[in-house]
Amino acid sequence: MNFNYPNGKLYNPKYAEQAFKAKNEKNGSYSNRGMTLEEDLNETNEYYRERKIAVIHKKPTPVQIVQVDYPKRSAAVIKEAYFKQASTTDYNGVYKGRYIDFEAKETQNPTSFPLKNFHQHQICHMEEVLRQGGLCFVILRFTSYEQVYLMEAKHLLVFWERMVKGGRKSITKEEIEQKGHYIPLGFQPRIDYIRIIDTLFHFS
Amino acid sequence: MNFNYPNGKLYNPKYAEQAFKAKNEKNGSYSNRGMTLEEDLNETNEYYRERKIAVIHKKPTPVQIVQVDYPKRSAAVIKEAYFKQASTTDYNGVYKGRYIDFEAKETQNPTSFPLKNFHQHQICHMEEVLRQGGLCFVILRFTSYEQVYLMEAKHLLVFWERMVKGGRKSITKEEIEQKGHYIPLGFQPRIDYIRIIDTLFHFS
Repeated sequence: MNFNYPNGKLYNPKYAEQAFKAKNEKNGSYSNRGMTLEEDLNETNEYYRERKIAVIHKKPTPVQIVQVDYPKRSAAVIKEAYFKQASTTDYNGVYKGRYIDFEAKETQNPTSFPLKNFHQHQICHMEEVLRQGGLCFVILRFTSYEQVYLMEAKHLLVFWERMVKGGRKSITKEEIEQKGHYIPLGFQPRIDYIRIIDTLFHFS
Repeated sequence: MNFNYPNGKLYNPKYAEQAFKAKNEKNGSYSNRGMTLEEDLNETNEYYRERKIAVIHKKPTPVQIVQVDYPKRSAAVIKEAYFKQASTTDYNGVYKGRYIDFEAKETQNPTSFPLKNFHQHQICHMEEVLRQGGLCFVILRFTSYEQVYLMEAKHLLVFWERMVKGGRKSITKEEIEQKGHYIPLGFQPRIDYIRIIDTLFHFS
């Protein structure tokens, strides 16, 4: 387990959002641009679980706990902790016996998806999962259009490689439309990605 | 996502241990009875990943974040957070395309394994995983003998059901020896549970 501190500059915004959500989900209030992608996916996964379609969970946000108080007759209180960089993707689980693994990201950029939304750790994890025969993909949302796409990890890895070799640091929307699969937003489930998985991997 | 506060009385000891470990893993020091089961499994999973045998990770400890500070030019600091009860098991991942899911627990009780080591949430999760065709089991360690067993979830569910119906609140060591599979402690990997999985599910 790596306990590296996150690079404050790079990650604070992300953590700020996480913390904001963690703080507000309790009261059922969300960020003012409507439901976040995470909330939509949590609802979707709950829908899948309740109907015994699939068992997929979001992993907890990894934190390094430094100081904990143990008040008498009440729950332990974490007094000092730090956000850690995730070593894997955020979502995984099982569908028809197969291992499912994905990361979900959104961008306000209308024309391309910045690759800085992913970390080298996660890219390595996706490669490992594919090598083990797991089903690995990313769910990308363009918030400006409310458009959601599922793109197989094997394609993301190509775009990542292009960046590593000095190419563009993002995936154009056109590329995502070509390589990815559009997921129309629904009511229940909100983001029916399992339907895409079925067609991609001939599960039904 | 459930944000129920843990029952302080019931969970403080467990959280105390978690916090202790979180605090000390950084310095490479562990609880004084040698490597914990968690550490042994983390090393084992690292061994599997490095050799491309399997990709299995421990999920982060779920915490509910209440207050976060954002100091200038440094990482966000969590100032108030609470341990949450896990809604799933601690470990999952992929092996040869199949979904692997397990919980690991140890007891100092020499004669039986108390079922209070598991929560209803986790039992339900195991049932869901089995229903989806995932490979689900528990790894149980008797610390007094340094003995580790792998027991398929389907057996644990029977013992849990027995308790629910008013039967004993633990699994006797004899029952674990009968239904479970002894895992001899090794050096690398420490706890070679994949070997048991291979024989149980005819993967090799």
